[in-house]
Amino acid sequence: MPMQPVPLDKASRLLNHGPTVLVGSAHGGRANVMAAAWAMPLDFDPPKVAVVIDKATLTRELIDASGVLSVCVPCVAQVDLTRAVGNETGRDHPDKLQRCGVAHEPGPLTGCPLVQGAIAWMECRVLPATAYVAGPHDLILAEVVSAWADKRVFARGRWQFENAPDEMRSLHHVAGGFFYATGEPLAPRGEASS
Amino acid sequence: MPMQPVPLDKASRLLNHGPTVLVGSAHGGRANVMAAAWAMPLDFDPPKVAVVIDKATLTRELIDASGVLSVCVPCVAQVDLTRAVGNETGRDHPDKLQRCGVAHEPGPLTGCPLVQGAIAWMECRVLPATAYVAGPHDLILAEVVSAWADKRVFARGRWQFENAPDEMRSLHHVAGGFFYATGEPLAPRGEASS
Repeated sequence: MPMQPVPLDKASRLLNHGPTVLVGSAHGGRANVMAAAWAMPLDFDPPKVAVVIDKATLTRELIDASGVLSVCVPCVAQVDLTRAVGNETGRDHPDKLQRCGVAHEPGPLTGCPLVQGAIAWMECRVLPATAYVAGPHDLILAEVVSAWADKRVFARGRWQFENAPDEMRSLHHVAGGFFYATGEPLAPRGEASS
Repeated sequence: MPMQPVPLDKASRLLNHGPTVLVGSAHGGRANVMAAAWAMPLDFDPPKVAVVIDKATLTRELIDASGVLSVCVPCVAQVDLTRAVGNETGRDHPDKLQRCGVAHEPGPLTGCPLVQGAIAWMECRVLPATAYVAGPHDLILAEVVSAWADKRVFARGRWQFENAPDEMRSLHHVAGGFFYATGEPLAPRGEASS
């Protein structure tokens, strides 16, 4: 089992380098996953995140109804899946997850989808201040209540992409389905990369 | 002159891939620059950004007083500068910018520092909704009112790192002064990288 719990005070590290994420949602028997490039940490401990979710999306409808979401970090091996869930809407296709090849399991605290093959998972609860910014700016603020990462690429409290196959690197969306992978390590002087 | 104006409806592209940024501020004859990893686009057109700025920082004091900030994207060649302005506070060192080797010019619309050698610059005005989230979450929401990028790495509305020297790639902070550079391109099927 490659997914190992991440201590909550280290969960902000999962998004610190700015990867594109998959946002999972579930409510009333429906579940969805979409891609979101506009996501970032918001606090260290307790860990919080901020993510922009357009109010036209099914994901937003489900998050608004449930007050919970998941945030998964996809990797290079999942770039086609990430494009697919970013291009197709769950509104038009109730079977979107199956169509896009998204295997997932429900998060234990929220029931939101945790995507198999992703290199990190977080479950999150929407914070009260979201009420002020979700309307005008589609901005969702949430506390991270559980976190896991793949031990092959996240260890000792940080990403270790340089010690794993390149297809396990995270993704950074530029535009129109064009991504960059996370690249070469730049360690502080006098410190080895690993 | 490598810095060329970026059309405002393309300015969100400068941060879409999640780079670490330099936040510039100026008020009452004082100016500062700090590093911030928690920054993302918030809207396309007019372009907006969200950035977390701790209320203990001089940067925050200057932004709260002036209502404006700059957001610059540093590159691999500036990793030491980025670490330096991230580690040292302008409160203890009024000459911080000189100490950290930050050459800069004032932005034409805001007076905030635009850092020489950075690969993108934006000038921003704080948005009203910041009043609700700056207190509890140190979150600053701002509209981008001007944008430039280095034509050697940003062209035709998107980053083109694969066509330039590696030291011009952007940075992604992991923790403790450890960064990853932006990495290899992953183009949609049937589309060349450039």
